[in-house]
Amino acid sequence: MNFLEEKIVREGKVLEGDILSVGSFLNVMMDPSFMKKIGEAFYERFQDEEITKIVTIEASGIAIASFTAMAFGKPFVFAKKKQAKNLSKETYTSIVHSYTYDKDYTIAIAKEYIDENDKVLIVDDFLANGMAISGLIDILTQAHARIVGIGICVEKDFQEGGKKLRKSGYRVESLAKIASLSSQTIQFVK
Amino acid sequence: MNFLEEKIVREGKVLEGDILSVGSFLNVMMDPSFMKKIGEAFYERFQDEEITKIVTIEASGIAIASFTAMAFGKPFVFAKKKQAKNLSKETYTSIVHSYTYDKDYTIAIAKEYIDENDKVLIVDDFLANGMAISGLIDILTQAHARIVGIGICVEKDFQEGGKKLRKSGYRVESLAKIASLSSQTIQFVK
Repeated sequence: MNFLEEKIVREGKVLEGDILSVGSFLNVMMDPSFMKKIGEAFYERFQDEEITKIVTIEASGIAIASFTAMAFGKPFVFAKKKQAKNLSKETYTSIVHSYTYDKDYTIAIAKEYIDENDKVLIVDDFLANGMAISGLIDILTQAHARIVGIGICVEKDFQEGGKKLRKSGYRVESLAKIASLSSQTIQFVK
Repeated sequence: MNFLEEKIVREGKVLEGDILSVGSFLNVMMDPSFMKKIGEAFYERFQDEEITKIVTIEASGIAIASFTAMAFGKPFVFAKKKQAKNLSKETYTSIVHSYTYDKDYTIAIAKEYIDENDKVLIVDDFLANGMAISGLIDILTQAHARIVGIGICVEKDFQEGGKKLRKSGYRVESLAKIASLSSQTIQFVK
């Protein structure tokens, strides 16, 4: 087990409906020394690629993107959920379906923040059905940016997102890959 | 002018309705070396205080809290913006009025993340009417945490938030204090 898998076993909580709560260390309350390791782990896996920008979605991706950006020494930008008044009207948008809340929402990035010269590493806390990541890919494709890779903290390997993205040719690297959450037990992909 | 004020003059955009857009460097797209300076600036101002936790609100506060937490070597937690129906009994909540969107929203932090032993530094990108910060103060007070200080990147000194908070006895430190945004011109408090 790597440092993230060990942390998940020690501090993660399995809730009803195959939900893994990692709020105490990964996406609500976070320790900077642990998050630094997350950023460095992504750097280790993608340092061979030329990356100009880190991209994520609010809210839980922002801290992960912050520490990843620091490891790469590159800027980061996050997609907002819903259209916000103080975003420029010139935005790329995509509709994302949330299975957790069973509703659609819009994600948006102002056009001025992404362009065809960008070589993007997408990062996020979870990958399950891959709907949010697909929305980001849609936005980045509209901007003619190149998607160099997708760095995920926790991939639910028993859901379809990772398989679909890899099949589409994207390089997806997940720091922890969960095989099963049945019976309150966390099993990782070996 | 300090480093943030210089950046605001160079890259900030004054929009209609006294809105200052700093999305290109402070709360949508960010450079890690610049954000590191923001964290260090808060550390410089609050290093004399004993601080156990950095607290902010999603989404634009999260990156600021990440880099501030790193400067302090302390954990950070963010309040989620929620719809009332998703709330559980295990959270502290407060209702916040947004003047920007003219509506109320609920902010929430799980009870397990804040307690009476916490000495908290609140950080956020903007301070205008102070409604969001007051909501955080409400939550932290429910948790019997001590509020050691409030670190703000950009304070709109021509609005009431800062005055009210200081009058209530809080130590508010703002890296940039804006006196006026009239006629598309940014004037700082001298």
